[in-house]
Amino acid sequence: MSQAISTLQDRFERLRANKAFEAVVIAIIVISALLIGAKTYEETNRFEQALLIADMAVTAFFLVEILIRMAAERRFLDFFKKGWNVFDFVIVVASLVPLQEGEMVLLARLLRIFRVLRLVSMIPELRLLVTALFKAIPRMGYVALLMFIIFYIYGAVGSFLFHGVDEKLWGNIAVSMLTLFQVATFESWATAVLYPAMEHFPYAWIYFISFIFLNAFVFLNMMIGIVLDVMQKESVQMELESGEGEAAELHGLRDDVRQLREQLDRMETLLAKRG
Amino acid sequence: MSQAISTLQDRFERLRANKAFEAVVIAIIVISALLIGAKTYEETNRFEQALLIADMAVTAFFLVEILIRMAAERRFLDFFKKGWNVFDFVIVVASLVPLQEGEMVLLARLLRIFRVLRLVSMIPELRLLVTALFKAIPRMGYVALLMFIIFYIYGAVGSFLFHGVDEKLWGNIAVSMLTLFQVATFESWATAVLYPAMEHFPYAWIYFISFIFLNAFVFLNMMIGIVLDVMQKESVQMELESGEGEAAELHGLRDDVRQLREQLDRMETLLAKRG
Amino acid sequence: MSQAISTLQDRFERLRANKAFEAVVIAIIVISALLIGAKTYEETNRFEQALLIADMAVTAFFLVEILIRMAAERRFLDFFKKGWNVFDFVIVVASLVPLQEGEMVLLARLLRIFRVLRLVSMIPELRLLVTALFKAIPRMGYVALLMFIIFYIYGAVGSFLFHGVDEKLWGNIAVSMLTLFQVATFESWATAVLYPAMEHFPYAWIYFISFIFLNAFVFLNMMIGIVLDVMQKESVQMELESGEGEAAELHGLRDDVRQLREQLDRMETLLAKRG
Amino acid sequence: MSQAISTLQDRFERLRANKAFEAVVIAIIVISALLIGAKTYEETNRFEQALLIADMAVTAFFLVEILIRMAAERRFLDFFKKGWNVFDFVIVVASLVPLQEGEMVLLARLLRIFRVLRLVSMIPELRLLVTALFKAIPRMGYVALLMFIIFYIYGAVGSFLFHGVDEKLWGNIAVSMLTLFQVATFESWATAVLYPAMEHFPYAWIYFISFIFLNAFVFLNMMIGIVLDVMQKESVQMELESGEGEAAELHGLRDDVRQLREQLDRMETLLAKRG
Repeated sequence: MSQAISTLQDRFERLRANKAFEAVVIAIIVISALLIGAKTYEETNRFEQALLIADMAVTAFFLVEILIRMAAERRFLDFFKKGWNVFDFVIVVASLVPLQEGEMVLLARLLRIFRVLRLVSMIPELRLLVTALFKAIPRMGYVALLMFIIFYIYGAVGSFLFHGVDEKLWGNIAVSMLTLFQVATFESWATAVLYPAMEHFPYAWIYFISFIFLNAFVFLNMMIGIVLDVMQKESVQMELESGEGEAAELHGLRDDVRQLREQLDRMETLLAKRG
Repeated sequence: MSQAISTLQDRFERLRANKAFEAVVIAIIVISALLIGAKTYEETNRFEQALLIADMAVTAFFLVEILIRMAAERRFLDFFKKGWNVFDFVIVVASLVPLQEGEMVLLARLLRIFRVLRLVSMIPELRLLVTALFKAIPRMGYVALLMFIIFYIYGAVGSFLFHGVDEKLWGNIAVSMLTLFQVATFESWATAVLYPAMEHFPYAWIYFISFIFLNAFVFLNMMIGIVLDVMQKESVQMELESGEGEAAELHGLRDDVRQLREQLDRMETLLAKRG
Repeated sequence: MSQAISTLQDRFERLRANKAFEAVVIAIIVISALLIGAKTYEETNRFEQALLIADMAVTAFFLVEILIRMAAERRFLDFFKKGWNVFDFVIVVASLVPLQEGEMVLLARLLRIFRVLRLVSMIPELRLLVTALFKAIPRMGYVALLMFIIFYIYGAVGSFLFHGVDEKLWGNIAVSMLTLFQVATFESWATAVLYPAMEHFPYAWIYFISFIFLNAFVFLNMMIGIVLDVMQKESVQMELESGEGEAAELHGLRDDVRQLREQLDRMETLLAKRG
Repeated sequence: MSQAISTLQDRFERLRANKAFEAVVIAIIVISALLIGAKTYEETNRFEQALLIADMAVTAFFLVEILIRMAAERRFLDFFKKGWNVFDFVIVVASLVPLQEGEMVLLARLLRIFRVLRLVSMIPELRLLVTALFKAIPRMGYVALLMFIIFYIYGAVGSFLFHGVDEKLWGNIAVSMLTLFQVATFESWATAVLYPAMEHFPYAWIYFISFIFLNAFVFLNMMIGIVLDVMQKESVQMELESGEGEAAELHGLRDDVRQLREQLDRMETLLAKRG
């Protein structure tokens, strides 16, 4: 590594750790987000030109900012070892896709919206929050699988039974599962889904009420499971912390008592000898 | 038991414990589930023949698989002692019901859908989850009974009061209870149920709001009861585990101190004798 | 008290504690409840006569049953000291109100429905559950008052602002509060309440979203408060129970050590004398 | 400070601490609130004159009441150091704004409604509750920010994608975010929002279901986070309280053992000397 690059890197590292620099980056992300929001208003067409320049400036800034951070790493590939850097890199590369007419404009716009997510990678508290959310995913995995099986079975049954009632709601298993998701959120489940079905199948309420109870039951138990899980981790940590103090104290006490006994042994031997 | 069967059984037992064998069974269950789902699409009629053969293969496989597991048991009736085996047996027998025209086709199809549940009995994590869910049922039993009494009383009152308002919603106690379930899920409870009733009975809101509050109150307390229940079991376990360490340490300490006293007694006697 | 009444009372007390007697009473309550439910079906008119006789038998039974329990008390007024006895007494007296034509029939029917509540006073587990629910009421009292103040203020503001938008939803403060309750349950709050209001007041969403957030916030904190409350009581009890064991052990240990010191004092004196 | 004012202040301080005085103030606030509520009924126009006088009396009373409390402070500015005093002062000043025709009447009425909030500052339990609610705000701050980012991104995407589907629901980012809030409360999200969108974009369900899951997931984790937070504070307090007892006991025990050793040292020296 030449001396010049090394000096530049030191500067970049200092710049990167600079609070003011971070504040500027955050401000630019927020302004960028506001520009994206402004684009959804029709009257913004008048400012189209100004917005385009500002947009390009923002894109350029993000490109430079990530290049600085890449150069600031001792080894180039270390940059991609952090999930958050990969996250930022993907967003910057995506925003470099050139604007074109037609469908591509829509895609380019969507890609640009996701730049708002950089706010998450810039603010440490949000980073912690998102990391915590990601950790909770495996815990919910098997419950999600169980829920999917319930939805699948009820979807197939619903599709076979209510096919003739309403083609739009029960036409095939995919549509049925979407209808069941609507039922699970209680949205018009009785007026628009249950009552039409009950006109053909008077006992259709068994299907719907059993589905709602099963769902609520699994969901409730998942909640309790998570609270229990969190509590276990909490109590183990508590034990370790509080245990340190008292356990150490008790251990020291036993050592003291052992030394007392050794001293008494010596004294007893002395007494016996002299006796 | 002849030697031949015994050897066969050993092979089956090894096969049953085989990871690859389990993976194949799970794969076949998933494919079987996808076939069932595919049947809900109209265009699958073209593949009818292929589906029928695949379906028969799946049914045959499940029959053989359960026979292997039955033969693998030392005594035939031991097989039915496990809830999960009974569960699998019922599903296999149900899927052997022959296909027929008319209503029977519907029933046969429904029976086949429940084969998807075998996924639950194959994946150990889902098994644990379902076992945990079943354990929670008695805990919720009396709360469910109390809720049913509330629904029954409000259903009867609602049926007597609002009979003339809307025959479909309040025609008899069964229909009234279904309407109250709709109210409990907040689905169109105000626009479609409360307001029409208030046109005839201006104080109908007392009936509905008291019902909603009572429900929410019982539900909330049930939740708290369950959390408290889970916590109690947790803390008892915590005590047992953490108690072991410290309590044992304290006990050992007292033994040490008792030995010290015995030694001192001997020394005091020695001193007194020589005095 | 004469000997005859005393003997009768003993018999009644034994009868009252009899499991079979309780089972019969519960069965009659359930049948009575089913009769009430059956009355909501139009076709029950055919069984009118049989139902009337069964109903009278049930009423008579309940009267006798409560008289037995009253007589079984050592002193008459002790009967009314228990909340559950008062509860039963009120239900029995209410069911003695004679049937009459017109509006009175409705009232008499309603009174008879509440006899189902006797099921709660007969089954010990339900009794415990209801007692626990009653204990939770004061804990929720001030939160309910705070919620009422929020509803009152928003109701008055809503009535002043949206009076002209929809007379039925915002006509006066009482109607406004009912509309806000509907909003709090999320029932058609956007399509039927928010959007019509936003046509006249484009910033009406501030009113509704602030109301929803305030409500959710107070509710959430109430939940947390209750969980914390339950936990505190739990932990205090845990401490008392677990504390007994370890604290007693520690206390005993200090006594042992104190006795050791006294013995050493004696020995030291002995040594010094002989020195 | 002259003697006269000092005596007056003492009287005011005693008056302020008087239970009866507080009861009168609370009664007047409640009556004032009822008057405000009564104004929302059209028929109250007949009592207009009486209400106006009562209203002026209430306003005058509040002015005098706050002046008494101001004078009761040792130093004038101390009054504004308490958040609750500032709260009361703002309400009183706001209610002094004179009534005028037109829009101003509406504003004046709204200001008067907020006087009901004085109930909160008068009742100590409500004060505690509101203080507890305010303490919970920072804890929810970053979660709210994360939720806002999710809403913003989905709002922008929804506005770009579904602009042509329904101008009223997806016209610009502000309207889109309001629609998403409606979706988050499950109000007509499927029938009025999802299905129209799916007619143009068959895969629109991915957008809605991912939004609902993301929301539910963040909300669930926030709940768990808060429970965990509350538990940690609880357990730390528990430790401090329970720790005092046992830790002190253990500490005392070690001191006792140390003294034993010193005594044994003296005895051993004595024995060695004499040996």
